[in-house]
Formats: sequence, C-alpha cells, structure tokens
Amino acid sequence: MRNLKLTLSYDGTHFQGWQIQPGFRTVQEVVEQAIQSIIQERVRSNVCGRTDAGVHALGQVVNFYTSTRLDAKTLLKAFNAKLPEDVAVLNVEDVGQSFCANKDAVTKRYRYVFYDQRIANPFLRYYAWHTKGSLDADAMNRAVQAIRGRFDFRSFQSDFPNRMSSIRTITDISVVHQGDTVVLEVEADGFLYNMVRTIAGTAFKVGRGDWPETMVGDVQKAMDRKVAGPTAPAHGLVMVRVNYNKENIVS
Amino acid sequence: MRNLKLTLSYDGTHFQGWQIQPGFRTVQEVVEQAIQSIIQERVRSNVCGRTDAGVHALGQVVNFYTSTRLDAKTLLKAFNAKLPEDVAVLNVEDVGQSFCANKDAVTKRYRYVFYDQRIANPFLRYYAWHTKGSLDADAMNRAVQAIRGRFDFRSFQSDFPNRMSSIRTITDISVVHQGDTVVLEVEADGFLYNMVRTIAGTAFKVGRGDWPETMVGDVQKAMDRKVAGPTAPAHGLVMVRVNYNKENIVS
Repeated sequence: MRNLKLTLSYDGTHFQGWQIQPGFRTVQEVVEQAIQSIIQERVRSNVCGRTDAGVHALGQVVNFYTSTRLDAKTLLKAFNAKLPEDVAVLNVEDVGQSFCANKDAVTKRYRYVFYDQRIANPFLRYYAWHTKGSLDADAMNRAVQAIRGRFDFRSFQSDFPNRMSSIRTITDISVVHQGDTVVLEVEADGFLYNMVRTIAGTAFKVGRGDWPETMVGDVQKAMDRKVAGPTAPAHGLVMVRVNYNKENIVS
Repeated sequence: MRNLKLTLSYDGTHFQGWQIQPGFRTVQEVVEQAIQSIIQERVRSNVCGRTDAGVHALGQVVNFYTSTRLDAKTLLKAFNAKLPEDVAVLNVEDVGQSFCANKDAVTKRYRYVFYDQRIANPFLRYYAWHTKGSLDADAMNRAVQAIRGRFDFRSFQSDFPNRMSSIRTITDISVVHQGDTVVLEVEADGFLYNMVRTIAGTAFKVGRGDWPETMVGDVQKAMDRKVAGPTAPAHGLVMVRVNYNKENIVS
C-alpha cells in the first residue's frame, strides 16, 4: 500500500467543519468522495487538525493509504477536477508508511483576522471578525508575547476536556496591522480546543483597551477559562501551515 | 428636497447585477429597500454605472432625492444596520440639487483580476478569473498602453449598441503582478457595454503569448468586435471608484 500526503486549501464558509456528520456538508466528506471517485477504493483519511464550521485552511494536511498506481501528479489534477470550487488540493506526495498527518506534525500555524474599521467590509464578511471599534495591534502584540513558550494553556481551552494534558509550546506569536485588518498569527506544537479563538478573544480585549497588556499572561497563570476573553468567532480563523520533520515524510 | 449621494461597496456574487428585475435579488432592490425602510418614503436612485451579475464594487455611487430630516451620519448607520452583509454604505453626503451620480462622473475606475496559478484558489473563486496558464503581466501592461487616450472603442463593445458614440478617453491603464494575481486597472471618462471585460480578454491573449503585444492597439484600430479577445468572466471585475468635480457635489 502507498501512503499519500495531501495538502489542502478550503474556504470553510459553506462547510459544517472538517469531520463527517451525516446530513451536513463537511470537508472530509467532499474530499474523501473526490478521492474515492478517482482511485475507486474506500479511503479513510487522517487529518492534521479538524477545523470547526466556518474555519478556513490554506495548508491543511491529510494522509491515507491506497493501492492506486496513478502517479502523484495525475492524482493532483484528477482530485482537483472532482472537487467543488471551495476546496483545492495543493500538493500530493508519496510518504513513508509510518507518516501520520496528525501525530507527526511538529508545529501548526494558525492565523486569526480582525477587521476593526467602523463600517463592515462586504468582502471580509466570511473571513474576518468585524470588531467595529479599532484595535491597538501594537498593544496586542506586546501582550501576547507573555504566552510565547511552554505553558499550561487550560485558561484558553473551551470546556471540552478532550486532551490528556493542557501543556503546549507556542513557538511563534505575533499581532500586526495589515491594511485595514489586524492579524494574529500563532505557531505551536499543538493546540487545545478553541485555543486560538480564545487567545484572539483575549487579545481583542487588550486591543480595545478594556484590559491591560499584562492580562494575556495573567489569564494563562490563572488556569481558569472564565478569566479569559470571549471565544472569537470561527470565521476569522485560518489554518495556515503544518510543519513536519523531513525524515518523517520521505517514502 | 435634499439630494443625497451614497458610496457603496458590494460583493456581487449573490446578486443578479445592479438593476431591479422582478424575481431576482439585485443590489438596487436591496439598497432601495434599506433606504425606504429608514426614511419611510419611496425612492428611486440614480446609479453611476449599472453592474452585471457577479460584478463587485468598492466604490459605486448613487444619488436620490428625499425629504428626510435625519442627518447624514445617522443615515449611514441606519442604512448599514438594514443592509445585508454583502452590501455596505461607505459614505452618505448631502450634495447640490443638480448632482447626478451618472452624468456628473468625470472618470470611473475599474479593476479586473486574473488568477494565473495552475491550481485554483478557493478564496478567489468569486473574485478572479482563474486562467490556469501563467500570464506575462509586463507584456500585457505594454500592450494596453496602445489604448490609453481618446479612441473609438467599438471593437471592445459587446453587440449591445446602447450608446450614441463609441468614443471614450482612457486616462489611465496598467497591468501589474500582485501576489499570485495579475491586476488590470483602467480609468476612463466612460465605458461601453462589457468594455473592461473585453479589454481584459484581449490582454489575456497577449499575456498567454497567443497574440503579439501590438494586438491590443490593432484590435482598437480594426473597429470590429470580432477581432478582440473573449469577454472575460464577470466575477473578476470590480468597480473601484468614481471621480467627480468638487463643484458638482457641494450642496
């Protein structure tokens, strides 16, 4: 059997998230159907990180086992020909038997986009949180530096205790102004449920001036979800990239 | 009666164009309904340039007469509260009695966006023409300079002879690479039906290398729509801005 790694981009607006749910349009279902219609086999894909309804991806990664003899380049074209316009396969490659899109991820990078102008932007209605009041991106950037590193992030986890440990390492985090948007980017060895959206909601409170810059660090230390800011809406979130060790990928 | 000038932005994806058509969702209908529900009067708006189905706007302009006493700032907020998320009013201002959004436009600026990467971008599916083959933006830019100035543009008009004259003046035109897109911008004192999309389709033939750079000028000189390139798809087109003389606006 071959083990294939796919890199996907999708607009999450019209999906009920990644995971298959009977009666709903999900990315997993659409992707697995496209794959199956080409390779004529049942597949079950492993995904790097399930995304919620409305969340987008620029570089989601999945892998699956197959006995197809079609080469990677042919499969790339064929999958894209079958997929609807809101999903694209960016890359197909043969990887080692043991490679798992989820377990082998070294770091994952997410982006959260705020639109802080007074009047809404019709073109960003599905891609940014319209905060209306303007945000101080510099204050937000200084504030989030307190959680760069290895910490217990339970304060930033929704009440959804689905992990063994709430300790994670944030390897990079920044907030910058970009045109009329404010963009938070965060890279970590893993994320708890709703972690990026809760960091975004907490940074938002700082950016609006409701909370001091020290508050992001204080929220982490409190180990209590109730002290964090709101869970920012899903549609501002984008899964940007997954990084793997080269040796785990080579086939 | 007051004469009010509104500047609008809209995502044209889910509209059957600007103009009211019974049984279809159009921008004009949605905008006039929002206005009427606030000012409690029937209005009939004059629009600068009707846009076709799928065409977007960053700075469309309309004007209408009203006896409402609500100030411009209040109206701006109220209209936006009533409008669906794919339309926004960016500005409301009182203008002189004689101001007409269409007739007083000195120049109008349009943008046409091409996405020339091999694999489609799900986020641009409604906002750029996916040409697949890559485009030579520099060649396109040199080619379109031939039609900067005052010319008879009948070669770039769809068979829709709805104007007295097909002579127009292009005051600015350029093609540039911008990230993974190629962007054509053109400003003129007026446009014929499908003129920007036909210029885009002709520039596309040059950008792909099918036609020499001299062809854009040759098409203009031919005075024959049949020699021009295809009419580029509507969804790559954006109405960017309308310029007026200050003296025509002051109330």
